Amino acid sequence: MSALRDGLIEVPAGLRDVVVSNTEIGDVHGGEGFYHYRQYSAIELAGAKSLEQVWFLVVNGRLPSEPELAEFSQHVAAARELPEQLAEVLPSIAAAGDRFEPLAGLRTALSLFGSVRGMAPLWDSGAGAAGADALAVCAVTPTVLAALYRLRAGLAPVEPRAELSVAANWLYMINDGQPDPAHTRAVERYLIATIDHGFNASTFTARVVASAGADVVASVAAAIGAFSGPLHGGAPDRALEALDAIGTRERIDEWVRARLLAGERIMGFGHAVYRTEDPRARMLREIALNLADADGVSRLDAELVDLAVTVERRVTEILAEVKPGRALPVNVEFYAGVVMRLCGIPNAMFTPTFTVSRVIGWCANILEQAATRKLIRPSARYVGPPAPSPVPAN
Amino acid sequence: MSALRDGLIEVPAGLRDVVVSNTEIGDVHGGEGFYHYRQYSAIELAGAKSLEQVWFLVVNGRLPSEPELAEFSQHVAAARELPEQLAEVLPSIAAAGDRFEPLAGLRTALSLFGSVRGMAPLWDSGAGAAGADALAVCAVTPTVLAALYRLRAGLAPVEPRAELSVAANWLYMINDGQPDPAHTRAVERYLIATIDHGFNASTFTARVVASAGADVVASVAAAIGAFSGPLHGGAPDRALEALDAIGTRERIDEWVRARLLAGERIMGFGHAVYRTEDPRARMLREIALNLADADGVSRLDAELVDLAVTVERRVTEILAEVKPGRALPVNVEFYAGVVMRLCGIPNAMFTPTFTVSRVIGWCANILEQAATRKLIRPSARYVGPPAPSPVPAN
Repeated sequence: MSALRDGLIEVPAGLRDVVVSNTEIGDVHGGEGFYHYRQYSAIELAGAKSLEQVWFLVVNGRLPSEPELAEFSQHVAAARELPEQLAEVLPSIAAAGDRFEPLAGLRTALSLFGSVRGMAPLWDSGAGAAGADALAVCAVTPTVLAALYRLRAGLAPVEPRAELSVAANWLYMINDGQPDPAHTRAVERYLIATIDHGFNASTFTARVVASAGADVVASVAAAIGAFSGPLHGGAPDRALEALDAIGTRERIDEWVRARLLAGERIMGFGHAVYRTEDPRARMLREIALNLADADGVSRLDAELVDLAVTVERRVTEILAEVKPGRALPVNVEFYAGVVMRLCGIPNAMFTPTFTVSRVIGWCANILEQAATRKLIRPSARYVGPPAPSPVPAN
Repeated sequence: MSALRDGLIEVPAGLRDVVVSNTEIGDVHGGEGFYHYRQYSAIELAGAKSLEQVWFLVVNGRLPSEPELAEFSQHVAAARELPEQLAEVLPSIAAAGDRFEPLAGLRTALSLFGSVRGMAPLWDSGAGAAGADALAVCAVTPTVLAALYRLRAGLAPVEPRAELSVAANWLYMINDGQPDPAHTRAVERYLIATIDHGFNASTFTARVVASAGADVVASVAAAIGAFSGPLHGGAPDRALEALDAIGTRERIDEWVRARLLAGERIMGFGHAVYRTEDPRARMLREIALNLADADGVSRLDAELVDLAVTVERRVTEILAEVKPGRALPVNVEFYAGVVMRLCGIPNAMFTPTFTVSRVIGWCANILEQAATRKLIRPSARYVGPPAPSPVPAN
C-alpha cells in the first residue's frame, strides 16, 4: 500500500488480500457461494466424477482420458503400500504421546517416508521427478493415517487393496471390512469437495517451503503443521461433538442460548470467506438426508440427521434474532461430521479424512509454485530499541 | 502497491520488501554491513558473550543476570537428553535413505519429539508452556543431530554432558572427546553469529505456521523444510568443497576463470542483502587466521587458511576485472567451512552446526509471532480458464 523508508512496503495485517502469486488451480467466490478447481465447479465435479479423475484434473489441469485414468489409478494403487522401513517404525510413531494426534503422527511418518524414498529437490529435478514424489506422498497418506489409527487402538493395520478406489480403500483400511457402496460414494464426494479451497493457511505454507526449492515432503510436512493450528479451521469433529452434546430436539434452544450468552462461537457456523451458504455444506446436507432415507438405515443415524437439520434451522433463527444483519450460515464442518459418522468413520478420523484429500491440493500448489522458481520472502520492520547500543561488559 | 478488482492488492513478486510483521528480535542493515539482535551488534555479542547469554537475550529481549544465566544454563543442560521413545527410533531415522540427509532426519526426529513430549498449542497456552517447549526443542536439537551423524557412520551416539556449554557439548558429542578450548570458543562465536539474520525464508516459514496457532515443533519442522531448499542458502560445505577442489595457490586463477567462463556462481561470494562485506565473513576470517597462528596447528590447517585468504583476494580481483562495478564480497559460507574444519567438525556436520544456532532464532520468532495472535494468510489471483465451465459428461 504505502512505501516506507528503506523501500519497505506496508500492507494490511496478516497479508490479507495481498496477492502472493498467480494460480491456475482454482478460486473461491465468497460472495456467490461458489468455488472451482480449474474451470469446473468443485461441487459439480464431486457429483459427477471419481476422486481419481478430479485428482488428475487438479494436478494436471485437465480431466484424464480413459486410458490416462486407468494408468493414473494404477500408479496410485501401486503407491499405496508402506515401504518396509516406514512400516517398522509406525508402531512407535502411533504410540508416542499421551493423546493420539494423527496429524503429528502423519507429519513424522511422511518426513521419514521422504528420507526412505529419497525426494527430488523441486528445483533441480524435472517436473517428472517431483510429480512422481507428489503422487507417492498423496497415495501413501491414507495408508499411514489408517495404520496409525488402528495401531493406536491396539488393532493390526489393514493392508491396502489395489483393486479398490481411493475412497473405498480408505473406508476398508479403517474398518477392515468391505464398505457399503453408498458410504463409499458419500465419502468420495466429500473428499473431492475438500481437495482445495483457495489460498488457505496450509496451502500458503506449502507454497512458501516449495518456493525455497526444498522437496515435496518438506513442503507437505510444513503444511500439516499449519493445518494442525486451531486458527486454520477444518475440525469436523467439533461440530459433531456439539450435536452429541445437544442430544435431543428439546434441548436445542437452551443449549444455543447458553453458548451465545457465554460469548462462545457455535461450532459449524460462519466462515471467513463465504458470505452466503457454504456450497460444501449444502452438498453434505443433501448427502446426509439421502443416507438417512436409505433402506436399512439405523434409527440412531436417522435421528442424528434429523437433529442436525433441526439444529441448523433453530440456530439460524436464533442467530438472526440475537445478531440481526449478521448472517452466520452453516459451514463445511457442520454436516461433514454427520456424513462421516453415517459412513462408519470414527470421530478421531474426521480430520484425517479431510487430510487425505487436502494433501492432493497441497501437492498441486507445491508443483505450481516450484514451476515459478521464485522465492517467497517478505520483510519485517524492526521496532525494538535502537541499535547499535554498546554491549554491557557483564 | 495497487488495488485490483475484488479488493486484491498487488505487491512485488515473492513479497519482496513487503512488511509482514513487526519484530523486536533484530534486523539487518545490508548497506552498512551490520546486523543486530535486539539493540546489540550480533558480532560484538559473539566476541563478548556466551551462546547461553545470547540465546537468553534473543528469546527474552534482555541479557540475563548472573543467577538468571545459571538457571537458564541448567535448564538447557537438563533438556539435552533424548527421551527414550525417541532414542529407540533414532537408529531407523539415521539409516533411512541412500544419502545421509541430517536436516530431513532432524525434521523427522523433532516431529516425533513433539508427540512424545506433547506440545502446547501456541494460542491456547500461556507463554510459559510454549516457551518451555521452545527451550526443549533447541536444547535437544544438537543431541539429535550428533546422534544421527554417529549412527549413520556406524558409531555409538555420545551421551550429552550437563557440565559442558552448548558449544563444548556439541563438539564433544560429535567427536567423543574433550574439545580444545580454542575450538570451542571459535565454534561458539560462529553459533552466536548465526542465531538470526533478518526475515530469511525459514524464519518466515516458522512464523507462518506459528500464526495458525500450531505448536513449536510444527513451526520448527516447517522451518527445517524451507532451510533445506537450495534457494535458502546456508551451505558452508559447498564453499569448502571449492577450496578443496582448487587445492593449491597455483591453480586458483585457472579454476576461477573456468567457473566464470562456464557461467557458474563462485560459492561463498555474494549475498542477497549485503552490498558490502558480510560482517560474519569478516569475523570468521579473523577467527581462522587466529586458529592458523596458534601453537601446535597442523601444516594442513595452516595451508588451508592461507589458501582461503589467497582465493578470497584473487577471486575479488578477477571478479572486479570481469564484472566491474558489481561487488561480490565473500559471504558467511566462505570462511565458515574453514573454521569448522579447523575445529574438527566433519563436512557433513557443517549445515547441522548452522542449524544448532538457527533453531534458537526460529523459536524466538515463533514465540513473537504467536503473541500477535494474527493469522498470516495472503491471497492468490486465479489466472486459469474462466469458471464455471460445464463439466464434460465423460
